[in-house]
Amino acid sequence: MEPSPREVCAFEAGIKLGMLFHQFIGTPVSEASRRSLEEAMRRAVLNQPYVSRARVRIKPEPLRRASQNTFGYASLSPEMLEAEVGVEYRGVRCVGRLSYSEDEAYPVMWVEFEE
Amino acid sequence: MEPSPREVCAFEAGIKLGMLFHQFIGTPVSEASRRSLEEAMRRAVLNQPYVSRARVRIKPEPLRRASQNTFGYASLSPEMLEAEVGVEYRGVRCVGRLSYSEDEAYPVMWVEFEE
Amino acid sequence: MEPSPREVCAFEAGIKLGMLFHQFIGTPVSEASRRSLEEAMRRAVLNQPYVSRARVRIKPEPLRRASQNTFGYASLSPEMLEAEVGVEYRGVRCVGRLSYSEDEAYPVMWVEFEE
Amino acid sequence: MEPSPREVCAFEAGIKLGMLFHQFIGTPVSEASRRSLEEAMRRAVLNQPYVSRARVRIKPEPLRRASQNTFGYASLSPEMLEAEVGVEYRGVRCVGRLSYSEDEAYPVMWVEFEE
Repeated sequence: MEPSPREVCAFEAGIKLGMLFHQFIGTPVSEASRRSLEEAMRRAVLNQPYVSRARVRIKPEPLRRASQNTFGYASLSPEMLEAEVGVEYRGVRCVGRLSYSEDEAYPVMWVEFEE
Repeated sequence: MEPSPREVCAFEAGIKLGMLFHQFIGTPVSEASRRSLEEAMRRAVLNQPYVSRARVRIKPEPLRRASQNTFGYASLSPEMLEAEVGVEYRGVRCVGRLSYSEDEAYPVMWVEFEE
Repeated sequence: MEPSPREVCAFEAGIKLGMLFHQFIGTPVSEASRRSLEEAMRRAVLNQPYVSRARVRIKPEPLRRASQNTFGYASLSPEMLEAEVGVEYRGVRCVGRLSYSEDEAYPVMWVEFEE
Repeated sequence: MEPSPREVCAFEAGIKLGMLFHQFIGTPVSEASRRSLEEAMRRAVLNQPYVSRARVRIKPEPLRRASQNTFGYASLSPEMLEAEVGVEYRGVRCVGRLSYSEDEAYPVMWVEFEE
């Protein structure tokens, strides 16, 4: 059965969060390089179909904790990553969100519709 | 606004295809290692929430073409990859599909509902 | 200046460890899928130039700890990964090794020569 | 047997090229996002041990060719990527280089010493 525009919107939002997480987890990151990685991730997802806006944040506190080693940097981990991707498909607008939940020990992803 | 079970199902299917593509594109692959990579990809996606079944295929012909070099292997590329991921969420069943379209020169992803 | 066979051997070993780490960190993994991922990683690196043997291990204990969530799996993390890649180049043999050091809070990589 | 400083230098250079290739191949990229991805890749590798300098280039022409589709972007592919990473270890300096060879249909990596 054919999906509705709302269903396609949600599907597309899911693809984008899957990309952001699985393409970039593992990247060497530090306080010094954090901004450039956020910016590259944001611009990468803006290339993808139907994306209207995007926000990517690498949280300084988990990054600082993970960088307590001889070399002063870490690999990008699920704990550090927060993202929000707006998708617009045939007049429907939704937002996919990614945020690590300390309680659930899991990088939660969910979708919301704008109206 | 809260998404419906169908919308969540589509969203979850999108996440999984985004994972399969962006986690594994670039992996060194050859005719000899193709099956083990397909199997690992399939089992990786089966770990993810609400996945009921999965099929991953690395197409032999584009792999063969890309392996025409001194070392006889290639990096997994979008042209080689085909996948199908079944998701079940609150009684709703959908399937996310990934297949490279030669006509569109693009790895197309789409979602279908099972009833 | 031209590198010696020993230097090339070490260089090639480094490439392989960089691949294993950065290609696969982030992969959804569980006790059930661990073996298939180890096998796919091992076979992936065996494709690469001058690799004579490889061993990849996903350590059960850090995996178990990271999987304590609703969905019972984790993303492959540096803490879980151990690898050993044998390289042979113009009669020189070396081994690149990767092992997470809890003391240094860092995934240490090093190279050894076989004679 | 213990590796010499030159051998460690070459090993470290290999790790960095392996990282750049396998972390980022597959990233959605376009003419509009190319610069931010180059910059993030450069800054990512500068975090890693013993790196003294780095240059990353995404070649416009293969990118343009691969972006001839409805959505006007591509996945970062081996054909597009060029990199140079300077490593300094115990007074020894070497450079790892990555460049796609059209003749060999392969992303060639090699190492050179600076004296």
